[in-house]
Amino acid sequence: MEHFVIEHVYPIPNARGVRAVKSHIEVKNGTIITVAPGDYQNRESGAIILDGRGKWLSPGLYNTHGHTPMTMMRGVSDDVVLQEWLNNHVWPRERLFTSETAKAGTELALAEMIRTGTTGFLDMYHMGMQNTYELVKSSGIKSMISKGMMSIGTPEEQSEKLAAAARDLKEWEQDSSGRITGMLFPHAPYTCTPDFLEKIVDAGHRYNLPLGIHLEETAREVADYQHDYGMTPARKLKEIGFYSRPAMLTHVVHATDEDLDDMSVPEVTISYNPMSNAKLGSGIARVPEMLKRGLRVTIGTDSAVSNNNLDMFEELRLGALMQKVAFQDPSSIETEAVWKMATENGAASMGFDNSGKLESGAAADFILLDSASFALQPYDNILSHLVYAASGRDVTDSFVNGRQLMKDGELLTLDEEKINAEANRHYRKLNEAYL
Amino acid sequence: MEHFVIEHVYPIPNARGVRAVKSHIEVKNGTIITVAPGDYQNRESGAIILDGRGKWLSPGLYNTHGHTPMTMMRGVSDDVVLQEWLNNHVWPRERLFTSETAKAGTELALAEMIRTGTTGFLDMYHMGMQNTYELVKSSGIKSMISKGMMSIGTPEEQSEKLAAAARDLKEWEQDSSGRITGMLFPHAPYTCTPDFLEKIVDAGHRYNLPLGIHLEETAREVADYQHDYGMTPARKLKEIGFYSRPAMLTHVVHATDEDLDDMSVPEVTISYNPMSNAKLGSGIARVPEMLKRGLRVTIGTDSAVSNNNLDMFEELRLGALMQKVAFQDPSSIETEAVWKMATENGAASMGFDNSGKLESGAAADFILLDSASFALQPYDNILSHLVYAASGRDVTDSFVNGRQLMKDGELLTLDEEKINAEANRHYRKLNEAYL
Repeated sequence: MEHFVIEHVYPIPNARGVRAVKSHIEVKNGTIITVAPGDYQNRESGAIILDGRGKWLSPGLYNTHGHTPMTMMRGVSDDVVLQEWLNNHVWPRERLFTSETAKAGTELALAEMIRTGTTGFLDMYHMGMQNTYELVKSSGIKSMISKGMMSIGTPEEQSEKLAAAARDLKEWEQDSSGRITGMLFPHAPYTCTPDFLEKIVDAGHRYNLPLGIHLEETAREVADYQHDYGMTPARKLKEIGFYSRPAMLTHVVHATDEDLDDMSVPEVTISYNPMSNAKLGSGIARVPEMLKRGLRVTIGTDSAVSNNNLDMFEELRLGALMQKVAFQDPSSIETEAVWKMATENGAASMGFDNSGKLESGAAADFILLDSASFALQPYDNILSHLVYAASGRDVTDSFVNGRQLMKDGELLTLDEEKINAEANRHYRKLNEAYL
Repeated sequence: MEHFVIEHVYPIPNARGVRAVKSHIEVKNGTIITVAPGDYQNRESGAIILDGRGKWLSPGLYNTHGHTPMTMMRGVSDDVVLQEWLNNHVWPRERLFTSETAKAGTELALAEMIRTGTTGFLDMYHMGMQNTYELVKSSGIKSMISKGMMSIGTPEEQSEKLAAAARDLKEWEQDSSGRITGMLFPHAPYTCTPDFLEKIVDAGHRYNLPLGIHLEETAREVADYQHDYGMTPARKLKEIGFYSRPAMLTHVVHATDEDLDDMSVPEVTISYNPMSNAKLGSGIARVPEMLKRGLRVTIGTDSAVSNNNLDMFEELRLGALMQKVAFQDPSSIETEAVWKMATENGAASMGFDNSGKLESGAAADFILLDSASFALQPYDNILSHLVYAASGRDVTDSFVNGRQLMKDGELLTLDEEKINAEANRHYRKLNEAYL
């Protein structure tokens, strides 16, 4: 389908209260030629004509924080405090991961994300990344793949690992013609020494790679860092020159005003992770303060161990609700702003500048949703419904760069039945080893 | 199907970490005869045998707070503060409601609730209740129908209205053989004078009806009441004898410790409404404090104008997350406790003491869920998945008193296509009148 048109679809308006109009979308060689009201006129163009009757047309969603292999631990550790979560549940199991376990988890995550309308995601992990790359490539989804690192080993070993990771990422970038981008991702200030972080900033410049990091997720983390270094983790990052690179800062729940000021430079993005931050009891990021400073905010689910699903529709809804309740003010964040975080902002933050929007010249990354879905009735306020009522289960079709990944609820590039069976097989194996 | 068995189902365990076992459930005359591991042995009993392969078996969910007609205003007023929400959006539209508008909204809500696994709900509204009763009756769902009242009109008019409402409710209770229960529901302390509330308490005793009320939803409401009456609204209720009746207190976000102590008597229930309280910026109810006092806590969605969907799976998940983030402690509430609120506690609070549980002698109110659903993999921690990962969209089948209301995703007692069409027709009409 290099040249196709979908007729009789209703594109989601960019604002609440605007009524959708029956339209068509024309796609050629992976790019949107036009989204326009009415029927397609140029019937002799040779374009394949598809019928989108009964469907909403929406940009795909971009999930800017996650660890796909960790779907293999969904539900193993709820209701426990962070240290117990890590020490008694997550890390002991992760130590038993083989690259096959990780692969089964990544495949499960990919299926869930495509099913629920995600067309691009940022993944951070430390093993089995070659598998991730290959799965992303064959599944057709967009991804920024990032290599997680801690300062373990001698300085020489660290440098070697870093160089190897950078080379892999650059190779994947080249091989995927831009559908896969790469990122260097030191785990966090509390697991990476300032020296190591400096090395990573250097490598970012040398290999032209953006940087990512978990930052100021808990109050404890900030207090400890202040005790040890006499400044917040975010201030240390500034000192080290982290923000001189395009950077993805995830969580950022306990940033001071000065921290947020420091981050307010072009090409720095914050990944807001409301569900994970709530479930682990970390707190609520101050998103209005970020937006006031012009910071680019995006939304991410984090992994299925702290979430426990990868449905971006739930995530953006919770993202809005958390702000309203934190400030006890329903106007503290607006539907349109949250929607932009999950679409356009998310895509741009991963280097897909031309994704997440329905316009001529943009990449043909979009989804269709069932207009009969009960939670979307009455349908006049459709943008509101997508933010406050929809489920990823309402998504019926998915396209990335014009390639169809899901059709009427059926995945076209992944075998869901096999993926479920493998995930359960590997989970049982893992659990037996753990117990 | 007066006598039937579903084989090859996996009943949801009551605790996390317990693995489900392949079982069968036998139902006769609306009651569960047994839920037991293995196949059904008594093949000559005459029972119809159904195959539940690929399904989880779960108690149905009970939604203890809502206003079904208000689905007709889904999405009309997000991101605005409560007074604007009421004065500029909700009330002006509600004034234009006919009983047909209300009916279309109720029917839409019933379809959404049954689809998403709700088997019983408490509804509060002030008009078109005869329609609600008839729709509940024909749809097969369980409901506590409550009559919303404010102290408007002369004392004589108030008394007459009250008596009329009580007679309706008693008639419906009798006519429905217990599938419908009734409740008197003064709107709130700030819309009902103490005199009127006393009258309602009296009527509760006289007609043997439980009482419901919106209580301490916002900080402002409590402050104003203290200013006007020198005590909290909850304390006034105690003074008036409200808690001498079985009572459903909804929201209860800003209760003092003393308020909670006052409420801690048998037959008083709190309906926790996390999504509505978040969306309207009201705050987060202190559920652990309620549980510590032995209070019966249940969960309700409130209406689709402040939620904006009626999916109880989302509601109970958000209910857990809000506690964890409010107290910055992931252990502040447990999976099992939240699950109990949405099932057994919810049912009992509406007078369905024998619902919401999978055991011999209980009413046959239960649902089946698709075990292949992507968010429920790997499936060992299934109770965790229902609370933290599932969607109402995973529900495939629904039974109430042994009658099947949904089969493989198809509603059997409601015409969903017609309901959607009617809802949209009435919405447009309403909107044209409003604009």
